[in-house]
Amino acid sequence: MKVPVCVLGLGLIGGSVLRAASASGRQAWGYNRSGVAAADGFDVGSDLAAALRRAAAEDALIMLAVPMTAVDHVLAAVAAVAPDCALTDAVSVKTAVVQAVARHGLSRRYVGGHPMAGASESGWAASSAALFRGAAWVVAADDGLDVEVWRAVAQLALDCGAHVVPAAAAEHDAAVARISHLPHVLAAVLAAVGGDGGELALSLAAGSFRDGTRVAATRPELVRAMCEANDAALLAALDDTVARLTDARESLRSSGSLAGVADEGYAARLRFDQLQRRAITSIDFTAADVMAQLREAGRTGGALRAS
Amino acid sequence: MKVPVCVLGLGLIGGSVLRAASASGRQAWGYNRSGVAAADGFDVGSDLAAALRRAAAEDALIMLAVPMTAVDHVLAAVAAVAPDCALTDAVSVKTAVVQAVARHGLSRRYVGGHPMAGASESGWAASSAALFRGAAWVVAADDGLDVEVWRAVAQLALDCGAHVVPAAAAEHDAAVARISHLPHVLAAVLAAVGGDGGELALSLAAGSFRDGTRVAATRPELVRAMCEANDAALLAALDDTVARLTDARESLRSSGSLAGVADEGYAARLRFDQLQRRAITSIDFTAADVMAQLREAGRTGGALRAS
Repeated sequence: MKVPVCVLGLGLIGGSVLRAASASGRQAWGYNRSGVAAADGFDVGSDLAAALRRAAAEDALIMLAVPMTAVDHVLAAVAAVAPDCALTDAVSVKTAVVQAVARHGLSRRYVGGHPMAGASESGWAASSAALFRGAAWVVAADDGLDVEVWRAVAQLALDCGAHVVPAAAAEHDAAVARISHLPHVLAAVLAAVGGDGGELALSLAAGSFRDGTRVAATRPELVRAMCEANDAALLAALDDTVARLTDARESLRSSGSLAGVADEGYAARLRFDQLQRRAITSIDFTAADVMAQLREAGRTGGALRAS
Repeated sequence: MKVPVCVLGLGLIGGSVLRAASASGRQAWGYNRSGVAAADGFDVGSDLAAALRRAAAEDALIMLAVPMTAVDHVLAAVAAVAPDCALTDAVSVKTAVVQAVARHGLSRRYVGGHPMAGASESGWAASSAALFRGAAWVVAADDGLDVEVWRAVAQLALDCGAHVVPAAAAEHDAAVARISHLPHVLAAVLAAVGGDGGELALSLAAGSFRDGTRVAATRPELVRAMCEANDAALLAALDDTVARLTDARESLRSSGSLAGVADEGYAARLRFDQLQRRAITSIDFTAADVMAQLREAGRTGGALRAS
């Protein structure tokens, strides 16, 4: 299962995959526009076609770790040079990538992924072989995907120290809209409403405001790239949010009570704090419904771990 | 200016005031329903009238540090036993306390306050003489307040290690609605919307969700007591929030862009991070408009510090 890995894009995530895959004993090489990692002793260049020719020659797993805006450009090169390689990605939304992969005729050996790791810094300089340790790494589990590619992608995630959460692409997008993209929008709104209160409000702000607005300090173009690429799922999460806020407002106005929102929020946060991630151990990878089995396991909080 | 202090209510805030005032060399004693602090060597009892008789005899500054729900009961005792003492409080909303104080005929020597300090634990056991170090302590600065009481309250705050932010009661309530009460409501809503995403969403949640929902782990009755007592100001902050969220949603739906909310949130968080608190040094406490001077200084980000 330890196939070589060709990493396209060497920012925080791609760089960390290159480092972690190498550290786990795999052949791994990469492409970056600037070839930045070459100086650190990694086999990295700025020649995309050359990296892909080697991938085709060694039957490597190709990992797309470029921003959503660069996906089309890189997929065109993959289709031209290494169309038969196993292919995965690390983009934070999945449905949009599935569609792009299909446009380039590369669906047959594509299984999407999303390592749920981040850091306050970005770029190769911030990358680390340890970035994925203890993190969730979603591997898409839609019907019709190639089971061998699925296992190869999952093994890469495990080798990087992550645990694998299987999910349908659309379910992934709906989930991350709620727990990753919505928090960024709410942090921005809270910061702006606090700022509307002027110097007095900002000078009194402490823990709850600081925590609630922390990710509003993320560069706006990164927030936009992530959120806008998942617009359909984020719109649904925003509708849910506006409905709950409007209910809370109406309850406060008409009866002076915030009981509903306070109790529901407390209960949900408690569920989060007490979440027990079940180990997925009983998947039959030869079964016809293996993807359905994987999805169901992920949907109920399960994850695959390195044995 | 170092008048004795009689602290009524010895939870986290009242207990910390008793400790800090004692540590600064003041005479300080307290009342608590359970008399809990007596064992720690402080002069504390469960006899409210006795504590107030001593306050009247020693012309002490009385500090109300009970929850909003107990304010009326304690004010009735103050009015009966020590109506001529200087009076302040530590309740997290000000307009509602101003009204209660007026109902009990105690407005003449009342100057409200709000130490902006907290901790994840509550109660006497969590109290500390260091709780207010580096924290803002709002002292109400409305027209007609007694200047000598104002200075006594401010001196207590400075002795406790805080810096004093002067603000009109209504301005205080509007500000904390935005930077303290709204963050609790948004944290609860975010937790609930995340929970609506089921086990999959919660199992993928990481930093942005954890930070954004941290204060949703606060006991709901504490969140309600704080937010519901400030309902008018919180309703205005909620309206601003819903309007901004609805604008963001409409922009995402119609043009696929979150530029407005992302840019505004980033700019506001940057203002918060870069806030320079100006020192208030030039107040003339004998001037007729001293409260207006103080309010204006607080409104523009100023604070009094210990010299």
